[in-house]
Amino acid sequence: MRKVEVKALVMDYIQKTPVVLLQDPVSEKAVPVWIGSNEAHAIAYGLQDKEFPRPLTHDLMGNMVNSLGGELEKIVIDSLHDNVYYATLFVRDVDDQVHEIDARPSDSVALAVRTDIPIFIADDVFDNAAIEMPEQDDEENILQAEDFEDFVEGKMNLSDFKKFIG
Amino acid sequence: MRKVEVKALVMDYIQKTPVVLLQDPVSEKAVPVWIGSNEAHAIAYGLQDKEFPRPLTHDLMGNMVNSLGGELEKIVIDSLHDNVYYATLFVRDVDDQVHEIDARPSDSVALAVRTDIPIFIADDVFDNAAIEMPEQDDEENILQAEDFEDFVEGKMNLSDFKKFIG
Repeated sequence: MRKVEVKALVMDYIQKTPVVLLQDPVSEKAVPVWIGSNEAHAIAYGLQDKEFPRPLTHDLMGNMVNSLGGELEKIVIDSLHDNVYYATLFVRDVDDQVHEIDARPSDSVALAVRTDIPIFIADDVFDNAAIEMPEQDDEENILQAEDFEDFVEGKMNLSDFKKFIG
Repeated sequence: MRKVEVKALVMDYIQKTPVVLLQDPVSEKAVPVWIGSNEAHAIAYGLQDKEFPRPLTHDLMGNMVNSLGGELEKIVIDSLHDNVYYATLFVRDVDDQVHEIDARPSDSVALAVRTDIPIFIADDVFDNAAIEMPEQDDEENILQAEDFEDFVEGKMNLSDFKKFIG
């Protein structure tokens, strides 16, 4: 199992879908996860690390767990079937029992960035899905996490990107 | 406090914002709540009452509460300041204690329709914000809850509607 970081949010203009790149800092490879635009906004807001006047959806999720005495521990992206990733959310209850809850990776990543819990990817998923990150020269094509405005306006095409990096 | 039902989702084309109409079945008046498009989708999906292959965001919220032995009881839209509604989510824990959690009405309504818990509005909020629902003849202008496609394509203009009904 590898701990990964949210490296960037990019737009796949062929699929017309936002993609979150989850990078293993050791190998520097990243797993691209296609997500919905609602979840992309939630992740982008989460990454901005700023306070909003009202609780965002995934803040509320965290607040609900805390109010019941629970503690969010981690999320694990643990399988990939028919191009769909599956994730499990680990929550510890007041009696120190850990519960595993089925979740979509998009909600999991949004929750992780908003509540500051770690994201892991199972080794077999990583080995199947990870791609090389682009060379330093190409980093201008990758929209960094903090650039939310750029993300919305972004011109990144992941299909081209994958062809390019072979 | 009045128990209300999600009567319809409409588009306010002047504000370019979706609106959810929460109707008191006794007086038949409804409170319009302006929401974000993400939450409008969540509410619309919730109203469709269909199973999705993967848990939607507000399904996950409900599953997290249940896995910690908690129980969602109700939501109450309890105040309105500077055109912003505030809601409180009531959750009962394993020890039968009720916790009150601050939430946006949009998340609250999405959670309520998805997990089938009641929605209440405080009397003073209702008295300040409720409008008459249109006559039967005008119902074609109101997009019923089940008509998600119509909602997305809808031409309903709430400002005009409010002027019309005076």
